[in-house]
Amino acid sequence: MYYVKTSSELVYNVTKTSSFVFHIAAANTQLQKTIEENLFISPFIESEWFQVNDFGYRALRLKAEPCEFTIAYNATIQLSPETEQIQFLNEVAHKELPASVLPFISPSRYCESDRLGRFAWKQFGHIPSGYSRVDEICNWVNANIDYIAGSTDASSSACDVIIQSAGVCRDFAHVSIALCRALGIPARYVSGYAVGLTPPDFHGFFEVYLEDRWYLFDATRMAPTSGLVRISIGRDAADSSFANIVGEATMLSMKVEATSAEPDMIYNNDSPVSTA
Amino acid sequence: MYYVKTSSELVYNVTKTSSFVFHIAAANTQLQKTIEENLFISPFIESEWFQVNDFGYRALRLKAEPCEFTIAYNATIQLSPETEQIQFLNEVAHKELPASVLPFISPSRYCESDRLGRFAWKQFGHIPSGYSRVDEICNWVNANIDYIAGSTDASSSACDVIIQSAGVCRDFAHVSIALCRALGIPARYVSGYAVGLTPPDFHGFFEVYLEDRWYLFDATRMAPTSGLVRISIGRDAADSSFANIVGEATMLSMKVEATSAEPDMIYNNDSPVSTA
Amino acid sequence: MYYVKTSSELVYNVTKTSSFVFHIAAANTQLQKTIEENLFISPFIESEWFQVNDFGYRALRLKAEPCEFTIAYNATIQLSPETEQIQFLNEVAHKELPASVLPFISPSRYCESDRLGRFAWKQFGHIPSGYSRVDEICNWVNANIDYIAGSTDASSSACDVIIQSAGVCRDFAHVSIALCRALGIPARYVSGYAVGLTPPDFHGFFEVYLEDRWYLFDATRMAPTSGLVRISIGRDAADSSFANIVGEATMLSMKVEATSAEPDMIYNNDSPVSTA
Amino acid sequence: MYYVKTSSELVYNVTKTSSFVFHIAAANTQLQKTIEENLFISPFIESEWFQVNDFGYRALRLKAEPCEFTIAYNATIQLSPETEQIQFLNEVAHKELPASVLPFISPSRYCESDRLGRFAWKQFGHIPSGYSRVDEICNWVNANIDYIAGSTDASSSACDVIIQSAGVCRDFAHVSIALCRALGIPARYVSGYAVGLTPPDFHGFFEVYLEDRWYLFDATRMAPTSGLVRISIGRDAADSSFANIVGEATMLSMKVEATSAEPDMIYNNDSPVSTA
Repeated sequence: MYYVKTSSELVYNVTKTSSFVFHIAAANTQLQKTIEENLFISPFIESEWFQVNDFGYRALRLKAEPCEFTIAYNATIQLSPETEQIQFLNEVAHKELPASVLPFISPSRYCESDRLGRFAWKQFGHIPSGYSRVDEICNWVNANIDYIAGSTDASSSACDVIIQSAGVCRDFAHVSIALCRALGIPARYVSGYAVGLTPPDFHGFFEVYLEDRWYLFDATRMAPTSGLVRISIGRDAADSSFANIVGEATMLSMKVEATSAEPDMIYNNDSPVSTA
Repeated sequence: MYYVKTSSELVYNVTKTSSFVFHIAAANTQLQKTIEENLFISPFIESEWFQVNDFGYRALRLKAEPCEFTIAYNATIQLSPETEQIQFLNEVAHKELPASVLPFISPSRYCESDRLGRFAWKQFGHIPSGYSRVDEICNWVNANIDYIAGSTDASSSACDVIIQSAGVCRDFAHVSIALCRALGIPARYVSGYAVGLTPPDFHGFFEVYLEDRWYLFDATRMAPTSGLVRISIGRDAADSSFANIVGEATMLSMKVEATSAEPDMIYNNDSPVSTA
Repeated sequence: MYYVKTSSELVYNVTKTSSFVFHIAAANTQLQKTIEENLFISPFIESEWFQVNDFGYRALRLKAEPCEFTIAYNATIQLSPETEQIQFLNEVAHKELPASVLPFISPSRYCESDRLGRFAWKQFGHIPSGYSRVDEICNWVNANIDYIAGSTDASSSACDVIIQSAGVCRDFAHVSIALCRALGIPARYVSGYAVGLTPPDFHGFFEVYLEDRWYLFDATRMAPTSGLVRISIGRDAADSSFANIVGEATMLSMKVEATSAEPDMIYNNDSPVSTA
Repeated sequence: MYYVKTSSELVYNVTKTSSFVFHIAAANTQLQKTIEENLFISPFIESEWFQVNDFGYRALRLKAEPCEFTIAYNATIQLSPETEQIQFLNEVAHKELPASVLPFISPSRYCESDRLGRFAWKQFGHIPSGYSRVDEICNWVNANIDYIAGSTDASSSACDVIIQSAGVCRDFAHVSIALCRALGIPARYVSGYAVGLTPPDFHGFFEVYLEDRWYLFDATRMAPTSGLVRISIGRDAADSSFANIVGEATMLSMKVEATSAEPDMIYNNDSPVSTA
């Protein structure tokens, strides 16, 4: 067990009454607990937390009149390290998948797995199923997609990204998820904080259902999976952007940080260890 | 209150062990109750019902060894007619939407509302908000999309369908949903039975969140909304096909039927009345 | 007959040996003659003019070593005004089209007319064929596509632009061309200079084959068609960008200008008069 | 030098006056000569040959009133075998490309090379330029795209085909062409007859401009390139379908055949020999 400190600070200029939904707070799951957290909104605006679905994550909602406001969140999170040997994890037969997992083998807005069946089987059909197949998908995405800031936009999907061979963290996750689902492996999008990410920012990665639960993966390999803190979980980034705004507002600045409270505990990027 | 009798019979030839998830049973919601139902599987195969999420709908799951089998479901459903004047229903401000409704303003696999914002506002921005705007979207879809069997396939999305101006019921629903969401109106896909549909088949339509709950709409105008029976509800057809099969199986035949137990009670197609 | 003065000045920083093909010089056709022209390249770089295909337009080609260079072109062009009554122009039956015109009813990179057949017939099938149908296409494009700088990029096609309902001059031309071809009306892309365009820039518009020759149209309605000077003609913008560069070079500045030598002769934008 | 006999017979039922453009006759180029040919149209319908552009190929055009008619074409073609060592052919620098070749590095309807730049450089950037790079593109297409009849339709483009990893001969050619152009290598689509193709049909392949002229390639590897007879040449299949029909007609039957007059002369598929 070890500890991560996360913080984010967003400043908005609201020019017309706007409704905000923020995904900035760490989720509480069996392997991730919020030990302590603080939320500041200045000037004061009434806000409310809510749970979306049953995945344990929270969103914060508020309505802002025209103004300039700052929202800051910081927390100490306890993460449970993997103890099992994850490289031997098996895929789960369709018939055995829990009902709550089934939605995550269907295609979604940015993960058109229905179009990628043959592609995925040609690339990964011969790899032993389970952890090694997912790991090989990460290898492939990492080798075939270049990380280029600004190369994609809010409408770029996994198929677009494969064709243009470039994207950012959310695109790496979308391509990986689409390929997993195309092979019948449940996969879902996770937004979060990442210890060691340079430059610091919100991060997008993914989880795969193996053996008996969801395991974290990150095809960008820009930060160790053992230092990933989940904020929000969904079918793809359509469910998980850090702020959904209906109205008229401009973000003036953003600061994001995640550091290990005990740096030595963060596992090396290359070792096959995952924290979920 | 009135009653609808539904039935479906599907015959499959299974050539390799296959896992099936069926969406063929009527949902139980506040406005729709299953009074009586029967399920036949012949030869006998063990099966289990499960609930997906919290929308009140059920799926049936089974694993079939190589064989030819028949699955038949029939039920009597009680539907509650609308009493309010639905033509005056209002849209709900984003800030006031229940948390459970929020996922249905995001884009999904077949409803790329993120790409259609300007299109939707140009076409429907001047229409009074609420029921009349959704009704106008149905009018537009009905006038601009031709119903042509076989004109689309499993990868056709709302944008594809607008461009080719042809589709089937699921495509009419996808385009309508995408346009609603593009305007910030929550909308979700519903698969079901439809009294009066010719030829008889499973049907695809949609629900819109107005005022205080979900209301049924059907841009195909091929059957009265008051005779629609919901089976499954999702973001789009990716969540709701009548059978998901993993394995190797061929459907040999399909019979679907829905009739009013009291034919006179089915409201006329043209009157602005909806049952949800 | 009247006269237009055009000029353009482009400055490039070449960081690696690069090959340039420029489309900046006015074409010579039956209705458009170059009376006088000057080309400056500084520092001096050897260049050569060439004709592409048989449409009367010229391209300029050069190879630049690493340097900063300026290329400037200015010309006086004589345009022949229309004398016939163009509003009565007829479409030409497929069987009667000259062989050289046939390629311009096929789909091209940015004009996927093969996907838009039903869309076009539904929108324009009831309009009397000939000039009025093309004019109505221009009206529709003008009403349904917003002119927004930066809303599209080099991969945006007619179908993309219809969905997003926004574009720039090249996109207005692409959508118009795609709709014409979908109806069997030959249409081609023209890049050029435009008197009265604000802000001054290279312009993109299109030509339609009616009756016995190509006629100019411009769905942006940002400048009178009688003041359009053709530089290059192709299937779409893939054939006609003002500079194709293979190598490594950055454009540092661009100035474009087109003015009427006899301003009074430029016909009003709204009158149904075209110069080709 | 050796000889190939080709024949095709098409039967149409015309229900409304229709205009046909056929691409069924062998082209005449420096390396391919029509020695003898016959055209039958029964019942007699007036027809005319025409040349499109300057590539040496011919189209046949006719207008048919409602009727059932047969068009049959057969010919003896003389092909010149390669004498040079094609595996050492070089690519041509952009600055040195003949003007007539330039259109074939631009993207076209079915070959969106503009979207595939990074993809192509990542896959083929490290391969020595020239013949071996094009050959490697053919290898890649052959390995990554499955030949599956009916897997694509008239709107499928190179990017679609890469994603779905399946297609027919025209798709193999489109992907290969798009990848070549993305690397700056001129490539064009060729429709034709192919000795040894099973089942016999019209074939689609491509040419690449290397060293000093166009060379034939066929990524399907379903027939030796030395037995390919060119009918029509264009940017992609939009220019080259065997029949363009405007009107209302149904094809009732089609027979296509190509045989070597001296079978021993047809080079083995695997040897690096090409006839253009």
